[in-house]
Amino acid sequence: MAYLNDHYLKLKAGYLFPEIARRVRAFCEQSADAAERLIRCGIGDVTEPLPAAAIQAMHLAVDEMARRETFRGYGPEQGYEFLRHAIAQNDYRDHGADIADDEIFVSDGSKCDTGNILDVLGQQNRIAISDPVYPVYVDTNVMAGHTGEADESGAYAGIVYLPCTPTNGFFPEPPKQPVDVIYLCSPNNPTGAAATRAQLENWVNYALTHKSIILFDAAYEAYISSPAIPHSIYEIPGARDCAIEFRSCSKNGGFTGVRCAFTVVPRTLKAITSRGDQQPLHPLWLRRMTTKFNGVSYLVQRGAEALYSPEGKKQVRSLIEHYLGNAKVLVAGAKAAGLSVYGGVHAPYIWVQTPNGISSWQAFDKILKQANVVITPGSGFGSKGEGYFRISAFNSRANAEEVARRLKALNW
Amino acid sequence: MAYLNDHYLKLKAGYLFPEIARRVRAFCEQSADAAERLIRCGIGDVTEPLPAAAIQAMHLAVDEMARRETFRGYGPEQGYEFLRHAIAQNDYRDHGADIADDEIFVSDGSKCDTGNILDVLGQQNRIAISDPVYPVYVDTNVMAGHTGEADESGAYAGIVYLPCTPTNGFFPEPPKQPVDVIYLCSPNNPTGAAATRAQLENWVNYALTHKSIILFDAAYEAYISSPAIPHSIYEIPGARDCAIEFRSCSKNGGFTGVRCAFTVVPRTLKAITSRGDQQPLHPLWLRRMTTKFNGVSYLVQRGAEALYSPEGKKQVRSLIEHYLGNAKVLVAGAKAAGLSVYGGVHAPYIWVQTPNGISSWQAFDKILKQANVVITPGSGFGSKGEGYFRISAFNSRANAEEVARRLKALNW
Repeated sequence: MAYLNDHYLKLKAGYLFPEIARRVRAFCEQSADAAERLIRCGIGDVTEPLPAAAIQAMHLAVDEMARRETFRGYGPEQGYEFLRHAIAQNDYRDHGADIADDEIFVSDGSKCDTGNILDVLGQQNRIAISDPVYPVYVDTNVMAGHTGEADESGAYAGIVYLPCTPTNGFFPEPPKQPVDVIYLCSPNNPTGAAATRAQLENWVNYALTHKSIILFDAAYEAYISSPAIPHSIYEIPGARDCAIEFRSCSKNGGFTGVRCAFTVVPRTLKAITSRGDQQPLHPLWLRRMTTKFNGVSYLVQRGAEALYSPEGKKQVRSLIEHYLGNAKVLVAGAKAAGLSVYGGVHAPYIWVQTPNGISSWQAFDKILKQANVVITPGSGFGSKGEGYFRISAFNSRANAEEVARRLKALNW
Repeated sequence: MAYLNDHYLKLKAGYLFPEIARRVRAFCEQSADAAERLIRCGIGDVTEPLPAAAIQAMHLAVDEMARRETFRGYGPEQGYEFLRHAIAQNDYRDHGADIADDEIFVSDGSKCDTGNILDVLGQQNRIAISDPVYPVYVDTNVMAGHTGEADESGAYAGIVYLPCTPTNGFFPEPPKQPVDVIYLCSPNNPTGAAATRAQLENWVNYALTHKSIILFDAAYEAYISSPAIPHSIYEIPGARDCAIEFRSCSKNGGFTGVRCAFTVVPRTLKAITSRGDQQPLHPLWLRRMTTKFNGVSYLVQRGAEALYSPEGKKQVRSLIEHYLGNAKVLVAGAKAAGLSVYGGVHAPYIWVQTPNGISSWQAFDKILKQANVVITPGSGFGSKGEGYFRISAFNSRANAEEVARRLKALNW
């Protein structure tokens, strides 16, 4: 008799975004007018066309596939050297972070990578996760059997939750107890908070002391607006020995539909076997990728490479400025509506406290019905997200301005 | 202290193809002349350009991404409806197999899918795997902790190996003992054997009797040359209740570098929880894909859709006929050289017995050095592959003819 993986049955109903999609669909079916007026600021999906440099590179790559002489079959599972080099040079070495080309693993998404990384880690690890947080970190740990059941607030037994609140600027401090694997996300999804150098140093010191591993999700680093804030955990001395970093082309190059991301696994990073001896993780991740992955589409890798060309960089910069401009408009609108507002400066997300103590889903339903705007309920990101909602700045400027107007007009 | 996944340390040195690449590189560094003459019939990678229909569709898709009105961000993780429908209709319903659109899950590769499927299956399952076999089935089970250590022949404790030999036509019979999860691959990689209807019926009956699940890898179904041989396990009554099928665009549309595949999980397929109640696997796989995957690149999905257009089908057919023509040439050449030859009729692989009782790797080295041809040593596919080697028919016709000539001239 074939058994299924029981741990899946512990998962709370529906992943956040499918649940939002369900409610929006139901709402739109009720009212065609409201459906017409609907503006989506829910899921963090880009809206603007791809940079011209990427478009051009992908056309060229498609043409290469049409001729025998230039056709490409299987590529290296870890990514083509041309892209690994462009990433290591532009994103790391040019910023003083010592990362080699072969420490870059090109993938089809940070969501995949942050889930798949558990493949090479042991079952015994005590896992620490910020709260609120991108739900994939928690859900993939549940699926992997690293937790017990969820309580009424949705918190799973066995996970050490690190509360992110206005008091700590929505970035967690290291816990009192020792933990082995720590998920950090900066700039943060969903709160929009960005960790300072001192906060990251604090975590790197903690991880080195406890021989822990930090899983650092920097998918939004391009939105950092202050030179004082690190773009990579590897800007912190010692991080090569305790951190894995995840980055993506989704939110800078607009690749959410094209699919390209990467993971950095330094060769100096070690973990222990159950017998207690230290071994590097790099060969395990390489083995995982060569055995369970076939590399990112060649067309896509050429598109991603183009984001690092001089024109590509300018075009990406202009996309980021567009979305950060939206964020500014939305922050101003929400503040003018009398709401308590966080984020939106180093991130495309605005984190808003619900007024009058109403719940996140109540706020979601109210904003959907009265303003015909889709936001994301904070409680979907964890129990400490209850009482907040997230507005995404991924939109046209006109839509961002319209959402700001509607928020101001909303009758709470 | 962060633990690593100890099971990875059980894996035998190097995944097969990286080891071949290493030996070929070392050989080419020794002799520039031989490197010039080298013909690769090792890794099963296509060589011919993409079908024109796919090229055209991908250009159009790239252009859509360049304009705000037609830009696509995140797609459905399970694949776009246009592609799921084309697959379910053309590959299944048109051939009398009752598969719904939403039972198709589009992915970036069958290698990924056959590894990832273990995510939703329990740790308690007794796993049966053909020998010889595509190494990914075994390696991913080792990584997931479903085995003990390997013995000297490379066989892992805990796996039930199903020998494939000339006696059973290289397709395994159900074992005497009950097993829970069975990997079958037809047409077979590496032996080129294709299961008859009677053989598949036998397995489906076994699986229904024992409530087992068959993982059916049909990545090479397009090469089947006889109307008597089923293309899908779902052509067998009862298979919807006991089988998951994997297919790919790699070997028909030549998508090895483009990346598109799919998994079929029928809604009627159930497995049991550790408490013994039956539950459908479809929701678990859906949850896995929505949580740990972000869908295949939009450009790629449009390319894959085009393979199902009338022109696309004709172009795919002509690719298959080209490779099967090569296979015919290679089979004839190997037979003329006095070798015992199998496969090459319903598959792009020729399975050859080594002469004079030499080992697979000895044959590999000999063919590399004397004929400057790269083949794949059979022992890399399992202990029962020892004494065989695989020749891939993925090549130009001229190369296939040259390889046939060199095989005949080889001095064993």
